Amino acid sequence: MRVGVVGAGQLARMTYQAGISLGLTVRLLATSPEESAALVGREVAIGSPTSGPDLDAFAATCDVVTFDHELVDATHLGALERAGHTVRPGAEVVALVQDKRRQRTTLSRLGLPLPEFRFVSTADEIAACGAEWGWPVVVKAARGGYDGRGVWVVPHPEGAAALVRETAARGVELLAEQWVPIEREVAVLVARRPSGEARVYPVVETVQRDGICHELLAPAPLSPALAGEARDLGLAVAEACGVTGILAVELFVAGGRLLVNELAARPHNSGHFSIEGSITSQFENHLRAVLDWPLGDPSLAAPAVATVNILGRSSLDPALALPQALAVPGVHVHLYGKPARPGRKLGHVTATGDDAADARARAREATEILAGGEAE
Amino acid sequence: MRVGVVGAGQLARMTYQAGISLGLTVRLLATSPEESAALVGREVAIGSPTSGPDLDAFAATCDVVTFDHELVDATHLGALERAGHTVRPGAEVVALVQDKRRQRTTLSRLGLPLPEFRFVSTADEIAACGAEWGWPVVVKAARGGYDGRGVWVVPHPEGAAALVRETAARGVELLAEQWVPIEREVAVLVARRPSGEARVYPVVETVQRDGICHELLAPAPLSPALAGEARDLGLAVAEACGVTGILAVELFVAGGRLLVNELAARPHNSGHFSIEGSITSQFENHLRAVLDWPLGDPSLAAPAVATVNILGRSSLDPALALPQALAVPGVHVHLYGKPARPGRKLGHVTATGDDAADARARAREATEILAGGEAE
Repeated sequence: MRVGVVGAGQLARMTYQAGISLGLTVRLLATSPEESAALVGREVAIGSPTSGPDLDAFAATCDVVTFDHELVDATHLGALERAGHTVRPGAEVVALVQDKRRQRTTLSRLGLPLPEFRFVSTADEIAACGAEWGWPVVVKAARGGYDGRGVWVVPHPEGAAALVRETAARGVELLAEQWVPIEREVAVLVARRPSGEARVYPVVETVQRDGICHELLAPAPLSPALAGEARDLGLAVAEACGVTGILAVELFVAGGRLLVNELAARPHNSGHFSIEGSITSQFENHLRAVLDWPLGDPSLAAPAVATVNILGRSSLDPALALPQALAVPGVHVHLYGKPARPGRKLGHVTATGDDAADARARAREATEILAGGEAE
Repeated sequence: MRVGVVGAGQLARMTYQAGISLGLTVRLLATSPEESAALVGREVAIGSPTSGPDLDAFAATCDVVTFDHELVDATHLGALERAGHTVRPGAEVVALVQDKRRQRTTLSRLGLPLPEFRFVSTADEIAACGAEWGWPVVVKAARGGYDGRGVWVVPHPEGAAALVRETAARGVELLAEQWVPIEREVAVLVARRPSGEARVYPVVETVQRDGICHELLAPAPLSPALAGEARDLGLAVAEACGVTGILAVELFVAGGRLLVNELAARPHNSGHFSIEGSITSQFENHLRAVLDWPLGDPSLAAPAVATVNILGRSSLDPALALPQALAVPGVHVHLYGKPARPGRKLGHVTATGDDAADARARAREATEILAGGEAE
């Protein structure tokens, strides 16, 4: 079977690795031969994920097409489907997850717990949200945000005016959300295949800093009741969206309850712990799911799993520090082969063990070495 | 760092997978683009492992050269070393492990436990061994044997005459060994780096059928004393040979004691359990070792690990049965992408768990499905 992955970032790279075990041909659509997955893949097509003809040509060489990002045009995907190609997740699902306005509306109609939200386009509308909910107000770009980009915490009406001036000029559609005092952020990954079988990963805590996920701790330190609720919520969202493949549901824990924050319908940064931490990784389960094959066991392979992202601090290649990092006992280093620059995700380190604090300390120690140097 | 692997079979394929995590460039020297590792590798040179010029050209593109088989000419490797290339393991070690006569002599001089052995070239010499040790006598080709090929159990003097007639015609050098009543076969893998650091894997039982390894069970069911002895023996052989990378030491348990059977100075079939079964796999540790980087933790990642080889029964592609096999809970399937034929190693399945019998049963069940069909 030939699985085509649109996009060739680190998610595609790790999907490629998983595909080797299964004997699959994983083809990549990369914008450049220097992309993370293109550096290691055997069959790499160069093209744009936003070009209909490039997607057409790519799909013609694959049995099923899937994605490592959402930066595609859902109308192109719809055209691929009508032309008889198998696209998973499908155009409908991609259109839903890439548009936060649509996503919020759908989840809200299903009665799923969300922060209060409203579509806004003027400073007055944001100010009205602030008056009703209290300040600050969270404002999000409906499309294209990631890693904290496209999300603004607006402290007062003047801030709203400045934001609208800036975003309106770029034609950005906005969504306002009630700011909630977050106790903890967690994520639930669900693998779901077209026939309906779904498997839920253990809830993982996603420790954020400046809107970027720094650490993953599995299992998340939640009460069994709340963890069960989070898993049920993940399943409910996956069913509601009709997802095929991995769905990542990012959740806030606020006031002791769960609120859906973001969705991604693909392998996700919050699931990196699963490579060594679960019996079957999110990458293998994504492949199994898009091929409509039986799903693997997402259970934890160790009592505690910690994953720490390597966020570049300088332009120093983390590979230079690799031998030193590998001296830390029992760490699994994943480097993405990307040129270093400050703030960029260059890789991650996972450690497993019986003790959560010990696993976290080891993963942190190796990451600290790899992130290297002083901030530039 | 660019690591060149001479050979592109399944060992190179799994080494390639491990190299992706470490951000390495793993280059392959394949005889054909259809070989197992060549199907998935980004940088594949086509050439012969027995051609000096091909090895020269390949080494020129790599920082370190290593192997997935021993079917090379050690004099070529010596020439590479003299030309300033880094070859690991080195020409000396390769020359030692690929020649059973030399291997036996060296290990024997070091006082390591071996079956009685003698160089033989005539039927009379084999008959003399039989008269002294009793029949049958095991006769081995000094070079090029694997998976039971090049090993003959000779039942009587007439058998010796027939064997010598056949092998002498092909110029095969022979070694006779005392036949021992084997209670169990086990293997010890050692990772060793040039600076001398060495790590030993847990002893694994290698269940053989017709001279081919069918199953791996880790930890091997040995007394702690015998397991400790096996590990010490592995380390002693690695030190004695001055190996860099993975050394596999296959051992017989006979009469309650250990005897060294075979050596391989590369990742080995007996270490496949380590991909999911150890904290650091043999493939990652081979890469770390040949780069002289700190070695990873070989400890078991689960109380019990079972690996079953998929040996082809027909020309039916195991990939056809993959969806069915993946329905077996918690199995890790590795397919090598090789055309199926009876007796060929097409992949393996690993299962881990708390219970050895359960892990073995699951790995067997999936393998049974994948090996498929009736014997042709």
